[in-house]
Amino acid sequence: MSRYKLTLEYDGGPFVGWQRQNNGPSVQAALETAAFQFCGQELLVQGAGRTDAGVHALGQVAHLDLPDGAPGDKLRAALNFHLKPAPIAVLEAVPVPDDFHARFSAISRAYLYRILNRRAPPALLRGRVAFMPKPLDLEAMQAAAQHLLGHHDFSAFRAAECQAASPVKTLDCLTVSRCGDEIRVMAEARSFLHHQVRNMVGSLRLVGEGKQAPAWMREVLESRDRRRAGPTAPAEGLYLTAVRYPDD
Amino acid sequence: MSRYKLTLEYDGGPFVGWQRQNNGPSVQAALETAAFQFCGQELLVQGAGRTDAGVHALGQVAHLDLPDGAPGDKLRAALNFHLKPAPIAVLEAVPVPDDFHARFSAISRAYLYRILNRRAPPALLRGRVAFMPKPLDLEAMQAAAQHLLGHHDFSAFRAAECQAASPVKTLDCLTVSRCGDEIRVMAEARSFLHHQVRNMVGSLRLVGEGKQAPAWMREVLESRDRRRAGPTAPAEGLYLTAVRYPDD
Repeated sequence: MSRYKLTLEYDGGPFVGWQRQNNGPSVQAALETAAFQFCGQELLVQGAGRTDAGVHALGQVAHLDLPDGAPGDKLRAALNFHLKPAPIAVLEAVPVPDDFHARFSAISRAYLYRILNRRAPPALLRGRVAFMPKPLDLEAMQAAAQHLLGHHDFSAFRAAECQAASPVKTLDCLTVSRCGDEIRVMAEARSFLHHQVRNMVGSLRLVGEGKQAPAWMREVLESRDRRRAGPTAPAEGLYLTAVRYPDD
Repeated sequence: MSRYKLTLEYDGGPFVGWQRQNNGPSVQAALETAAFQFCGQELLVQGAGRTDAGVHALGQVAHLDLPDGAPGDKLRAALNFHLKPAPIAVLEAVPVPDDFHARFSAISRAYLYRILNRRAPPALLRGRVAFMPKPLDLEAMQAAAQHLLGHHDFSAFRAAECQAASPVKTLDCLTVSRCGDEIRVMAEARSFLHHQVRNMVGSLRLVGEGKQAPAWMREVLESRDRRRAGPTAPAEGLYLTAVRYPDD
């Protein structure tokens, strides 16, 4: 048995999410089907994070065990061949020690949230950005983001269906920057609560639109009350960009 | 009568090109239909350049004449409303003098060609980039591009169906740069021959892959023989990024 680490890019639009489900196509099932076509055995593909329906990945990580070894480049090419026409690409496949686990070995996850902030709706970036036509105040959003950094109880930004054992997380990075018509929010932590990034972005939006002051973000955080935060921002703006491991 | 300049973004994928044709949906026809729905009259929408099937725009320019004036922002909002669900966005609509002509007043056009240069096929950028999996030598491509700058007979890069009066054009800018997994070619000139950018990129690819030396580009140019140049690069990597006018 040989274990491989896969680095994955995908368009989340056509999928019910990462995880295999009965109600539609999942990224995990597409990879497991491609792996079956390659090696003729049913394998489990274990992902680092369960991205929701519509959420994209630029650097999701997963692992799988092949009964017989193969060069990483051969595995990558075979999976990409069998994945067609699904919008999933294996960027890299490398052999790893048997104790590597995509989910449990990860020491941090990084997300990007892309907002198209202009009057005209997206044409080329449709499905790849959240469209927010009202002008957003970048500096106010940056100031609000500062309140969320660090070790906190993030219950105010946690989805009701979240299965995490604890609502306490450490947010290591939360930056807001402008790039032309786009506002980009980048977040990094060891792990996140369900919908945490989208709920933080939904709240940053209220500050950016001037409906709340930056200091309101601290009140929301300290309330630990989901009803105090902004609405969940759309899935289509969210990208899992990287998962880091001790040996990186 | 009031004339308006429109700045347009579109995904060229679903269209037969800019120009109205009998064999499928065009960007021009979609805009003319939206204008009809707004003002109830059949109008001509005149574009600065006729992008081919599958070619995208980040800054195509067009003009139209409204029988009754309207604020530019209102026209933009109305066109964007009626354009749905076509992947076309009016970024800006501004009143211009009656002698402004999107095509004949233009003093330069700028194009971007995006190449995804990695082993794995595109997932998120499918239809938005040309996929070239062999490693490309950036410096060789940059050296080759230098031979094309300036005032030349570009017959070697001209499509058979080109309707330009002369094959002599002045190429003001041709840069090749790398941005992560992407190679980006930017070209600017007063005007281009039909398929000129895609044929130059198809030839730069041969240099990038090491099949030709950079100096071969000059031989091809001087031959004025289309058969000497590389194959036409795919439409999906090409973007009309900007059209410039004397008053900009």
